[in-house]
Amino acid sequence: MAPFVPLGRLLDDAGIGEAIHALAAEIYPICRSITGDGVRATLARLARHIDLEVREVPSGTRVFDWTVPREWRIRDAYIRNAAGERVVDFRSCNLHVLNYSQPIHAMLPLDALRQHVFTLPDQPELIPYRTSYYAESWGFCMAHAQLEALPDGIYEVLIDSSLEDGSLTYGEYRHQGETDDEVLLSAHICHPSLANDNCSGLALLTLLAAGLAPLRTRYSYRFVFAPGTIGAIAWLAHNEHRTHRIRHGLVVSCVGDGGGPTYKRSRQGDALIDRAMAHALCHASEKPTILDFSPYGYDERQYCSPGFDLPVGLFQRSQFATFPEYHTSADDLDFIRPGHLASSYRMIAAALDVIENDWRPVSTNPKCEPQLGRRGLYAALGGSKDGAAKSMALLWILNLADGRHSLLDVAERAELPFGVIAEAARLLQDSGLLVEELHQARALGVGMQQDVA
Amino acid sequence: MAPFVPLGRLLDDAGIGEAIHALAAEIYPICRSITGDGVRATLARLARHIDLEVREVPSGTRVFDWTVPREWRIRDAYIRNAAGERVVDFRSCNLHVLNYSQPIHAMLPLDALRQHVFTLPDQPELIPYRTSYYAESWGFCMAHAQLEALPDGIYEVLIDSSLEDGSLTYGEYRHQGETDDEVLLSAHICHPSLANDNCSGLALLTLLAAGLAPLRTRYSYRFVFAPGTIGAIAWLAHNEHRTHRIRHGLVVSCVGDGGGPTYKRSRQGDALIDRAMAHALCHASEKPTILDFSPYGYDERQYCSPGFDLPVGLFQRSQFATFPEYHTSADDLDFIRPGHLASSYRMIAAALDVIENDWRPVSTNPKCEPQLGRRGLYAALGGSKDGAAKSMALLWILNLADGRHSLLDVAERAELPFGVIAEAARLLQDSGLLVEELHQARALGVGMQQDVA
Amino acid sequence: MAPFVPLGRLLDDAGIGEAIHALAAEIYPICRSITGDGVRATLARLARHIDLEVREVPSGTRVFDWTVPREWRIRDAYIRNAAGERVVDFRSCNLHVLNYSQPIHAMLPLDALRQHVFTLPDQPELIPYRTSYYAESWGFCMAHAQLEALPDGIYEVLIDSSLEDGSLTYGEYRHQGETDDEVLLSAHICHPSLANDNCSGLALLTLLAAGLAPLRTRYSYRFVFAPGTIGAIAWLAHNEHRTHRIRHGLVVSCVGDGGGPTYKRSRQGDALIDRAMAHALCHASEKPTILDFSPYGYDERQYCSPGFDLPVGLFQRSQFATFPEYHTSADDLDFIRPGHLASSYRMIAAALDVIENDWRPVSTNPKCEPQLGRRGLYAALGGSKDGAAKSMALLWILNLADGRHSLLDVAERAELPFGVIAEAARLLQDSGLLVEELHQARALGVGMQQDVA
Repeated sequence: MAPFVPLGRLLDDAGIGEAIHALAAEIYPICRSITGDGVRATLARLARHIDLEVREVPSGTRVFDWTVPREWRIRDAYIRNAAGERVVDFRSCNLHVLNYSQPIHAMLPLDALRQHVFTLPDQPELIPYRTSYYAESWGFCMAHAQLEALPDGIYEVLIDSSLEDGSLTYGEYRHQGETDDEVLLSAHICHPSLANDNCSGLALLTLLAAGLAPLRTRYSYRFVFAPGTIGAIAWLAHNEHRTHRIRHGLVVSCVGDGGGPTYKRSRQGDALIDRAMAHALCHASEKPTILDFSPYGYDERQYCSPGFDLPVGLFQRSQFATFPEYHTSADDLDFIRPGHLASSYRMIAAALDVIENDWRPVSTNPKCEPQLGRRGLYAALGGSKDGAAKSMALLWILNLADGRHSLLDVAERAELPFGVIAEAARLLQDSGLLVEELHQARALGVGMQQDVA
Repeated sequence: MAPFVPLGRLLDDAGIGEAIHALAAEIYPICRSITGDGVRATLARLARHIDLEVREVPSGTRVFDWTVPREWRIRDAYIRNAAGERVVDFRSCNLHVLNYSQPIHAMLPLDALRQHVFTLPDQPELIPYRTSYYAESWGFCMAHAQLEALPDGIYEVLIDSSLEDGSLTYGEYRHQGETDDEVLLSAHICHPSLANDNCSGLALLTLLAAGLAPLRTRYSYRFVFAPGTIGAIAWLAHNEHRTHRIRHGLVVSCVGDGGGPTYKRSRQGDALIDRAMAHALCHASEKPTILDFSPYGYDERQYCSPGFDLPVGLFQRSQFATFPEYHTSADDLDFIRPGHLASSYRMIAAALDVIENDWRPVSTNPKCEPQLGRRGLYAALGGSKDGAAKSMALLWILNLADGRHSLLDVAERAELPFGVIAEAARLLQDSGLLVEELHQARALGVGMQQDVA
Repeated sequence: MAPFVPLGRLLDDAGIGEAIHALAAEIYPICRSITGDGVRATLARLARHIDLEVREVPSGTRVFDWTVPREWRIRDAYIRNAAGERVVDFRSCNLHVLNYSQPIHAMLPLDALRQHVFTLPDQPELIPYRTSYYAESWGFCMAHAQLEALPDGIYEVLIDSSLEDGSLTYGEYRHQGETDDEVLLSAHICHPSLANDNCSGLALLTLLAAGLAPLRTRYSYRFVFAPGTIGAIAWLAHNEHRTHRIRHGLVVSCVGDGGGPTYKRSRQGDALIDRAMAHALCHASEKPTILDFSPYGYDERQYCSPGFDLPVGLFQRSQFATFPEYHTSADDLDFIRPGHLASSYRMIAAALDVIENDWRPVSTNPKCEPQLGRRGLYAALGGSKDGAAKSMALLWILNLADGRHSLLDVAERAELPFGVIAEAARLLQDSGLLVEELHQARALGVGMQQDVA
C-alpha cells in the first residue's frame, strides 16, 4: 500500500503565496461589475492557468425571483474643474464611479454635484466603493478631504457608461474525481479594484484548481467564479439539477489580509466541511474565529437558502466589514501579502485533505490492545515518563476503531492534527491491525495520489 | 392584512405602574390568611376591576392529600403592660399576630410570654411574618429591639381569634379567546400586609386581566387568586379535568421591588413559556436571572407536581427569600415602586405576545433569496457598511422559513426581539413571500386584535 | 422496613487508613515484576485477609494478540568497584535493576557500563524505575549524582537473573451478592518497591474486599490483582465468557498521595460508575478532577478496548505521571499517608453505595405535594427563612418521583449527597408516599444489609 501523502503536501509549493499575489495583482486594475467586459477580461486571465468554461446569461433571463439586468459598460468618467483639469478620474481609480452608474454629461455647480458624491468623512483620505445595481442612479466616489477642498464653481461631469441588453458572465472549472460527488469552491468576481475583496479569493482558487488538475482525487471539484448574488443565483438556476451532487462547499473571499482566520459554518452547522474547516483552522492558528451561519455575507447566502441548504461555508481572514480597509481604496495590493495568501491556501488544502482522506477504521484486534512493540510500532522500553506521547495517535485510533468513528472523529477526540491520525492509521492498516468499515468502503478504496508516477 | 400590533402595545398605558401600585396599596392593610374574611375583602377589591368569580370550599373538604382546614377569624390581638398600654397591637400591624393563631387570653410574666414571641435578632427593628396553619399554637411577632426593651412584669395577652368550620375562598377570572386552550396566571392571596409578597402580584394580574378583557386573543386566559399551597391544591382538585387545556402558565409574586428580574423555569424546562419569558427578560434587562425549576417556591410547586407537570413558571423581581425585607414589616408600600411594577407588567406582556403571535413561516421562494429591493424591502444602495443591519430580521426569517422554525426560533437565533421579527414576518407575508406552515395553521389565522374598530 | 444504612458506614472503621498503610508497608519491599515469585509472595500476603484464588498462566500461552513471556527470576544484582564494594546493590533497593533484565556477569570500564545505566538528571538524588519486558536487554538504575561521582575504572557487574519457562501469576477474590451481576475492582501487582503505584491500590482493595465479605450486597464483587497489561489481558482472555456480567468497574492505583482526587471516565463516558464516582468525588472534595477517557493509563485500557468496552473507570489521587515522585525511589512509604488512603477508601465506598442502593421512586401521591407536616416530615412552622433547606431532599424526591428518575438523578439535580437523598427516600417509602418503579424493581427489593443480626 502506498504511504499516505496528505493533500496539502501534494498541492503546496514554496512559492504559492507569491504566485497567488502575482495573479491577484494582474486582475486588480480591471473594472469589474456584476456584468460587463471587466468580468470577461478577468476570466480570460484566470483561463491562462486552468481550462475555464465561460458562460453568458442574457439580460432579461429569469433566475428564480430575479431577472438578469442589462449589461453595464463603462468607458470613461471624470469631474473636470473650470480649468479643464480632471479632479476625479476613472482612469486613475475605477472606484471613483458609482458601480452601475447611468450615463451623464452635464455642467453642475458644486452644490448640485455634491448630491451625487459619496465620501467617508471618518476616513477622509480613502475612496469608498459604492454600487447601485437595481436603482437607476449616477454618482461618483471620492476622498472626503478632496471633496472638502474643491472650490465653488461649475464642474463638468461625465460618465460615459451604457446599460444595454447583453449578458451576465461567469466562469466554471471542473476537476473530475473518482466519483461524481462534488466539492464546490466559489468566489465572487464582481468587485472592481479591491485586492482582498476579492482578487485574493479569485487568484487563490484559480491556483488551487491548477494544483488539483494533475491529481487523482476521490471527489470531483467544481470552481465557480461568478458575480455576487445575481451570479450565484444564475449559476444555481442553471445547475439546480446538479446541486444534489454537492457534498461539501466553500465560499472564499478576503483571504490575503493579516487578520483571522475566520470560518463561518454552513446553515447545516455540523456538515463535514464545517468540522474539517474548524479542525484545519484550529491546528493552523492560535486564535481562529469559528462563527455560526448567519444570512448576511457572500454567496453562501444563496447556497444555504432553505430550498438548497447546501453544506457550504465561508472562509476569510478578517471577517468582511470588520476591517477599516473594507470597501475602500485602502483594500489595495499592499493590503494583501504572499504569506497570508499562502497560509489561507494551506488551511483550505488541509480541510480538503480531511474530506478526501477520511475513513472509518475497524480494528482487526478489538479485544485488548494489540502488541505494538513486536511490530515496531511502540517504544520498546517501558516506564519512561514521556515516551508514551508519541504513541497516542496509535492508541486513540485502536481504541476508537469500532466502525462508528471516522479518522476525523479520532483527531477531534485526541486533539491531534488529522494528518497525524491519517498517517498513523495508514501504519496500522499496513500492519494488518485496521481495515476499512465495510458499509462505508468507497469503490476505489484509495486516497489521493499523483495520476502518473 | 392588518398590520401587526404587539400585545405589549395593546395592553400598555403610561400610567400602568401607578395604577398597579394604587391597587396594591388598597389591599395592603387587609389581614389575609389561607382562609377567612381577609381573602374575601381582598377579592371584593379586585372585583371592582374584573368580573371575578368567587369560590368557597368548605372546611373538611378533601383535596388530594390535604383537607381544607377550619376557617380562621381574627378580630383583635394585643399585649398589654401593667399600665394597660397596648405595647403590641394587631390593629397597628397585622403581622404582630402569628397567622392562624389559636385564641388566648391570659396574664403572663415576661419570661413565659417570650416563649410565644417571634423576633428577628439580626434585623432588630423589623417585625417578622410567621404562620402556624397546621400546628395548633398561639404567638406574637414583634421587633427584637422592642422585646428587649420590655421591662419584667406581668403582661396581659389577648388573641381574639377563632378556628371554626367555614370555608376556603379563592377567586377566578376567565377571558375567552378564539380557542379553549388556556394560559394560566396565578397569584397567592394568603399573605397579610406584605406589599411585594404579594399585593404586587395580585394587583398586577388584576390589571392585566382588565387590559385583556376587550382584546381578541388566540388563547383563553384563566386568572387564579388563591391562598398559597392549600388554595392552589383546592383549585387543582376542583379543576383537574380542565388542566389538559393549560398550554402555558405563570405564577406571579414579588413583582414590585428593584431587584431581578428573575424567572424560574417550569419543571418541563423547555416549555414555550420558559423560552418566551427568558426571551422577554433578556431583551428587557441587562442581567436577568433565569433559574432551573426547583421544588421550593410558590404555587408552581403544585402545578409542576409530577402528576400534573404543567408548563408553569414563576416570575419575580428579586427571588423570594433573598432580599432582607422578605417576610418582614419592611416589605411595605415604599418597598414597591410604580416603575418596577410597570416594567414587570411589560415583561409579562412581552412573553404573552410571543405566545399569542408565534407561528411557523414557510418561504414561497425558498431557492436563493427573493429580491427584496424591487419590493421596497431592502436598502437599494449596496456597498454601504451599515445599511445591512436593518435588514437582518428579513434575511433571518427568509433563511429559516422552512416550516421547521417558529418566529421565536428565528428571534432566538437572530438575537433580535420577538416583536422585530414578528413585524418583519408580517411585512414578508404581506408581500407574498411567506405563508404559514399548513400543519400548524390555526383555525382563525389571525393574531391579537382589538375586538371593535 | 429496616432503616437505610449507607455502604460507607457499613464498611468504614476509624482505623482503616492505618490498616491500609500497614498492609502496603508489608508488601512494599517485595521485588515484583509481570511474572515471578514477587507476585506470588505479594498475593500470599493479601491472602491473609481474603480468600484469594491464585491462577498461573504458563509461559507461551497465547492471550489475544499477546503471548505470556518467560518467567523472570532475580536473586541478586550489583555493581562492584575495584575495592570490591557494592556501589549499587539490588538488596538495598530493587529499583536498581532494570526490571526483566537479562543475566550478566562482566568486568566493564565505566564508559561501557554507562550505556546500561538509567538515571534522572533532573532529579539527581532519585533512582528511576525502568522495565524492558519485551526487548532483551540488561541494565541498572541509579541516582544521577551517584553515577556522576563514580571514579573511572573497571567495575564488576552482576545480574543474577533468569528468563525461563514458567508462568504468569494473578489473584482473584469474588464476593457473591444477591445477583450474579458483577462489580469489577482491579489493581496492578507488577510494580516493585513503589508505594503509591501500586502497593496503595493493592492494600486498599484487599481491605475493601475483607470489609465486603460479611455483607449482603445486591451485586457480586470480583477483585483482580494482576500484572499490568499482560496480566489484565490474560485475565480477560480466560474470562471472556464472563465479561457480560460486569455491570460496573474500577481500576485503582496511586490512592495514597495527597493530590487529586482524580477520576477518569470509562470509554462509555456516562456509565453509572462514571456518574457515581463523579458524585462521590464532588461531595468529598473541593476540587476533584474528572477526566474523559483516554487510551493511555492503567488496565482500563484493556477493559475499555473496543471489543469489550466495559464500564470501567480509573480512580487515583494524583494522576499518574504528573507528580515528581512517579516511577522513582521517592514513591516510598512516606509518600503515602493513612489519611489519604482512608479518604480514597471512603470515596470508593460512597460510589459503591450509589451502585448498590440506587432505585427509581414513584410517588403514590403525584398530584400536588403530599402534606408532609401531618406525617411529621416537615417543619410545622411556616414562614421561617431557613427552615425549608432541611426539607429540600424530600421535596426533590417527591417532585421527580415519576418513575423516570433514579435516586442518583435526584441527587445530581438537587446537588445533595446521594446518602441524604437515599435516607429521605427511605423515610418517604416508610410513610407510604413512594413505591419502587415496577419495571425496574429488583428481585429482592432490599438494599445492603448485614448478613447476620
